[in-house]
Amino acid sequence: MSDRRVGLWLIGAFGGVGTTTAVGLAALAKKLSPPVGMVTALGDFEGVDFDTADTFIVGGHDIRQTTFAQAGRELLERSNVFSHALLAGVGPTLEAWSKNVRPGVLYRANAAISTMADRPDVRESSSPRMAIEQIQSDVRAFQSQHNLSQVVVINVASTEPPFELTAEHQTLAKLRNALAENPAALPMSSLYAYAAIDAGYAYVNLTPSRGATMPAMEELARAKGVPTAGQDAKTGETLVKSVLAPLFAKRNLRVLSWVGHNILGNRDGQVLSDPQNKASKVKSKDALLAELLGYKPQSLVSIEYVESLDDWKTAWDHVHFEGFLGTKMTLQFTWQGCDSILAAPLVIDLARLALRAHRRGEGGNLPALACFFKSPVGVDEHDFSRQFEMLEAYLATDQQR
Amino acid sequence: MSDRRVGLWLIGAFGGVGTTTAVGLAALAKKLSPPVGMVTALGDFEGVDFDTADTFIVGGHDIRQTTFAQAGRELLERSNVFSHALLAGVGPTLEAWSKNVRPGVLYRANAAISTMADRPDVRESSSPRMAIEQIQSDVRAFQSQHNLSQVVVINVASTEPPFELTAEHQTLAKLRNALAENPAALPMSSLYAYAAIDAGYAYVNLTPSRGATMPAMEELARAKGVPTAGQDAKTGETLVKSVLAPLFAKRNLRVLSWVGHNILGNRDGQVLSDPQNKASKVKSKDALLAELLGYKPQSLVSIEYVESLDDWKTAWDHVHFEGFLGTKMTLQFTWQGCDSILAAPLVIDLARLALRAHRRGEGGNLPALACFFKSPVGVDEHDFSRQFEMLEAYLATDQQR
Amino acid sequence: MSDRRVGLWLIGAFGGVGTTTAVGLAALAKKLSPPVGMVTALGDFEGVDFDTADTFIVGGHDIRQTTFAQAGRELLERSNVFSHALLAGVGPTLEAWSKNVRPGVLYRANAAISTMADRPDVRESSSPRMAIEQIQSDVRAFQSQHNLSQVVVINVASTEPPFELTAEHQTLAKLRNALAENPAALPMSSLYAYAAIDAGYAYVNLTPSRGATMPAMEELARAKGVPTAGQDAKTGETLVKSVLAPLFAKRNLRVLSWVGHNILGNRDGQVLSDPQNKASKVKSKDALLAELLGYKPQSLVSIEYVESLDDWKTAWDHVHFEGFLGTKMTLQFTWQGCDSILAAPLVIDLARLALRAHRRGEGGNLPALACFFKSPVGVDEHDFSRQFEMLEAYLATDQQR
Amino acid sequence: MSDRRVGLWLIGAFGGVGTTTAVGLAALAKKLSPPVGMVTALGDFEGVDFDTADTFIVGGHDIRQTTFAQAGRELLERSNVFSHALLAGVGPTLEAWSKNVRPGVLYRANAAISTMADRPDVRESSSPRMAIEQIQSDVRAFQSQHNLSQVVVINVASTEPPFELTAEHQTLAKLRNALAENPAALPMSSLYAYAAIDAGYAYVNLTPSRGATMPAMEELARAKGVPTAGQDAKTGETLVKSVLAPLFAKRNLRVLSWVGHNILGNRDGQVLSDPQNKASKVKSKDALLAELLGYKPQSLVSIEYVESLDDWKTAWDHVHFEGFLGTKMTLQFTWQGCDSILAAPLVIDLARLALRAHRRGEGGNLPALACFFKSPVGVDEHDFSRQFEMLEAYLATDQQR
Repeated sequence: MSDRRVGLWLIGAFGGVGTTTAVGLAALAKKLSPPVGMVTALGDFEGVDFDTADTFIVGGHDIRQTTFAQAGRELLERSNVFSHALLAGVGPTLEAWSKNVRPGVLYRANAAISTMADRPDVRESSSPRMAIEQIQSDVRAFQSQHNLSQVVVINVASTEPPFELTAEHQTLAKLRNALAENPAALPMSSLYAYAAIDAGYAYVNLTPSRGATMPAMEELARAKGVPTAGQDAKTGETLVKSVLAPLFAKRNLRVLSWVGHNILGNRDGQVLSDPQNKASKVKSKDALLAELLGYKPQSLVSIEYVESLDDWKTAWDHVHFEGFLGTKMTLQFTWQGCDSILAAPLVIDLARLALRAHRRGEGGNLPALACFFKSPVGVDEHDFSRQFEMLEAYLATDQQR
Repeated sequence: MSDRRVGLWLIGAFGGVGTTTAVGLAALAKKLSPPVGMVTALGDFEGVDFDTADTFIVGGHDIRQTTFAQAGRELLERSNVFSHALLAGVGPTLEAWSKNVRPGVLYRANAAISTMADRPDVRESSSPRMAIEQIQSDVRAFQSQHNLSQVVVINVASTEPPFELTAEHQTLAKLRNALAENPAALPMSSLYAYAAIDAGYAYVNLTPSRGATMPAMEELARAKGVPTAGQDAKTGETLVKSVLAPLFAKRNLRVLSWVGHNILGNRDGQVLSDPQNKASKVKSKDALLAELLGYKPQSLVSIEYVESLDDWKTAWDHVHFEGFLGTKMTLQFTWQGCDSILAAPLVIDLARLALRAHRRGEGGNLPALACFFKSPVGVDEHDFSRQFEMLEAYLATDQQR
Repeated sequence: MSDRRVGLWLIGAFGGVGTTTAVGLAALAKKLSPPVGMVTALGDFEGVDFDTADTFIVGGHDIRQTTFAQAGRELLERSNVFSHALLAGVGPTLEAWSKNVRPGVLYRANAAISTMADRPDVRESSSPRMAIEQIQSDVRAFQSQHNLSQVVVINVASTEPPFELTAEHQTLAKLRNALAENPAALPMSSLYAYAAIDAGYAYVNLTPSRGATMPAMEELARAKGVPTAGQDAKTGETLVKSVLAPLFAKRNLRVLSWVGHNILGNRDGQVLSDPQNKASKVKSKDALLAELLGYKPQSLVSIEYVESLDDWKTAWDHVHFEGFLGTKMTLQFTWQGCDSILAAPLVIDLARLALRAHRRGEGGNLPALACFFKSPVGVDEHDFSRQFEMLEAYLATDQQR
Repeated sequence: MSDRRVGLWLIGAFGGVGTTTAVGLAALAKKLSPPVGMVTALGDFEGVDFDTADTFIVGGHDIRQTTFAQAGRELLERSNVFSHALLAGVGPTLEAWSKNVRPGVLYRANAAISTMADRPDVRESSSPRMAIEQIQSDVRAFQSQHNLSQVVVINVASTEPPFELTAEHQTLAKLRNALAENPAALPMSSLYAYAAIDAGYAYVNLTPSRGATMPAMEELARAKGVPTAGQDAKTGETLVKSVLAPLFAKRNLRVLSWVGHNILGNRDGQVLSDPQNKASKVKSKDALLAELLGYKPQSLVSIEYVESLDDWKTAWDHVHFEGFLGTKMTLQFTWQGCDSILAAPLVIDLARLALRAHRRGEGGNLPALACFFKSPVGVDEHDFSRQFEMLEAYLATDQQR
């Protein structure tokens, strides 16, 4: 087992989440930092057959011309995360992994994305099929070069505009047909997802983009015996919502209105300042209240780009609720969290969970991972504590051995 | 069943919680207000054999010279709760119930309590036994006068100073002996509890005072087949803590410090401005963090009396936590809740639960009611969602029928 | 002097601000409430020749079918302001004043306004001139009926969409011409302002609507010897901004971003949910930062309608600033204020100030009243403390006598 | 003028404020950072005859064994201020200045201070006179070694317990007598102040400790022609208070209660966790409300040590106020500021102001500097904007030339 190596392929590798994941994996492997923030490192899950940090090799796609070390330094300077000493300690590993990052593949990209692409060797595909093949070729080369037992592909790229499903996406046969005939059959995130699953790699979607979330892709994943998970990592305001809303429900306190105002200043924020891209995110953040409460209070969720905040997403939530005898009361909270720092350990968690599931032959969507996501695929339960119990039950088998 | 009547005996009847409970029960009986804020009214618990609001008759003890109607008007004016119309609608019921409130029994009361006692017929007992007998005589007269099938006694009086247990409180025999010989054998709240249980009435303690929480009293309750529950109703800041702390634990985020600053202005607040009385409350609010997190972060809880707030308890909590790679982040919340309005529906819930348990022959402490309390007797679980599951399991038997 | 009577004519009389003004003036006249919140009642201004509350008679225009008493009860029930006793005490006065409220005059009203008009006798004018004459005829009848020495007309109606000035509005001659020829020469708020000033009544605009703010109307006011003041009362978030922004400026702390998120649920909020009407308000709230700081930080101001809040406007402001050696710091504030309650005493202040100015022969805009407004006409100073010094200097003459 | 050099002698040089001052002065001299946060660098004060950053040499006293560079790195690591690059850029200057820091002089120090003293050459004096002479000898040696035209001594050490004045402190003659006869005649901060003024050095007190604040010391300063200023730098919560309280006053809104809860984790915080030392600070923070409002609302100020916050002082203030017709409203703010970063530029400002005043022959207390202090000596005006106008008027003479 000591020679075993696994690969983590990051779509959007040099973004804040991707960079922090690489820095973090390298730091964990060298024991420079404890696994704080990682769910799979909880005492509850000791004994589960997870890959250790030192078995991971990182690679990926990105459209920007940089390295993990450079992107890490920029994060340090802009957002005051990491330390000079930590970055120095993982420098050689980051240098090696940066070489595994291939130019991103673009196809019909919108303006918000295109303007970010400053890597001269970015490849514009002329058809969906061509994009899929380029992606697959890159991941396969990575696996072969590093002699990796398994690879998991994780989408940590910027959010796309919403993409509505049609009849084309209902079966694998129809989707394959569409890919040949309809140039707009799939958005970019789904082309990457298709490429990964079709080539036999586990796939996880940390973003609100469409990715693998459609019946046709589920059919493909089951056929290939490849696990998938998604979507939209639950890292901050929504995470807090997912424990507070059940509180109101269980105490029979009637939520009258729930207003959430989010401000952030990283690249993700810039992309979200495009109203189309923002729509995906707001939808994902707003949906769970009705399911958690059993009725639909007035709710408003807004996201605004505030440059000075960099990676520090700040959210103010105002919950107005009615108690006994018609009395209105208020709970407000302010969340000040660093998005990349919150998401990166979940990327590592999901990589470990997906690789383990793949080894166990679990093909298709993994509903037991719902606690990681704002919009867990195929799961209606949004109560975080119940979702966590689903994870505990799912992982209990290993521990019993 | 239509002739069945049950009694709710409130110790501290004319306080904010007692008054709101009386107003609320009367309003529910007349369908003037929906049961918002009542856990036992949740759809989940439909079919459970609970007493309906219109079967309740309210009585109690108080040391103040007032009526439910008068105390209700004062709450309306000071704290802007209820409405003029609601109070008018329940006026006759409140007038009848006010007659059931007997002068409080005092024994070795401290200054904070004594100065509140403005009812001329308040009775100073000369021994623990005499106090117990006066209390029992009052409740028995109430039961007999109204021909009540059952009575539940609930402590909603102001908080006492902490009372430490000794060897005297470990068995019923020792306690009985102590009551005869040691004038300071029990604090006032425990004399009331003893009186209730010994006379065969279910007993619930909504306050942080000692009440029935001791082995000797548990032995008495089991011997008498009387259910008990306590202690310290979880209504605001601590309730929010009990869902947020598990969130940090389950995400492996390390809480570095948790500061809670509470301000309130009602009579409870005045009593708490006595440092001795405050100690009970702070202890109760601070204890659960270590149990929820599995380690002890620095924590500070303060409670201050701010007259202008009246019954509106406002709490600011500042949670400083560490995420991945040593990054420190912050969650703050502000809770603005009306204490009486939050506690009163729980009084009704606990009355219904205790009466039902009594009918079912459940003697002694009811651990399944842990979700109602800051310091649930005999229960180490402080995670609100797990506590709620305990309640669901406990009540499931009725519903299956 | 005891027989002297003055009139306060409110455009939008039955709105929250108008109703609270009427309730307040009646309560002040009967000494039922102290003049808390009134600037002209400050000890600093003792001895200034202001009209006392008991000399005022209230009248106005409104498009809604109600009375001051009815609107007051609704405010009490929805927003928990006033008390039953206070409303009862001023009942007869409100009944008398409600008879002075004439049906509103509409001309080319937009949908947000038209749907609010439920008074059957609302008058749709067929030309600007006709609207002006109807308005003037109503105010003159009010003056004559009550034998009023002076009348001041104050706009407290809902916010209109922004109205841009053109060459037509630069001189009185051009404006008179335009009124005859261009059906869209003036928005409704300006037709009311024109009517008031042209008829010789002092005019104050508490709203962000256009009103009298244009050179032609200033020319008219000077010609008629009529004082005017405006615009957009500074009651909450912006008021706080106007003392905090100078603080950052004077300490040389660099504001990086200033985000303000406002939520409110009254009729004003409903009108603002029309994006066109909202634009006026946001513009007015956002403009002053650059003037106060001397540079333009990133700023975002949003206003959303949240029904459950009724008249309680809640604002969260997040100020991100840079200190010494590039360190970023944060100030957040949450304002929970009742709009009508904050604005009504300013209406009374402005009525007293305008009536006094009229008596002193001050025609045209009154820049010394800048401290009352978000967009003080003709004044670039937005620092509240400096604006207040302007008021002190302006009123010092009376006090010296 | 290019050869002119001035000295800044910091009592408590290696504390957070002292260290940041040294780092900042060095960075300003090398143009590595702009003078953000410095009042004397405002455009308003261009042309005033202030010493430029590159003319300053820093020295001081400290009881801890460290260097500016080491203390700077610790601040960076604990509190995430400065940058690695900035510290590197000023390394040689800091190294030179660290040699100017002499071991602190202690006399009857309390436990909280003594346990911080880890420098082996700290000198315990056996009498007040001996302490004064040791201090003077150190500053004179610094002046002579570096050939400094002027030196200003600034107290940035930890807060002492309150020290009450007696008859001894009313005249210089009495004080001199007491210094010879009464071992407890002056606290340590005042011995330093006496030493500085008596030796002819300008003296500024940034802390709430007693320092030079007493009639006898004022007499000494006037006799020597030495300017003094103090006390307790206004950097955060109190600064915000000093603009918000006047707002309530000028709008005639009645403050019912003002609660401020401060948490911080630096050495200053540790010293404050000694209740005696804390008392000075709380007194200083609480006093100004009554003066700003003209009446005394209920107010509570608390300060607690929260280790994880390091130098980031966080304050939550809850202002409960009454508006028109008895309506209660709320303003809350949360301040998250880095104490050293906020105070250091004021140290440089005050050094420049005191050196200039000294050159102009202004002996004794400088009331025009009130805007820098929580408890400005000899000044009752606490309204920040009025205090700032005092500074503007004071500095206007230079600018007119």
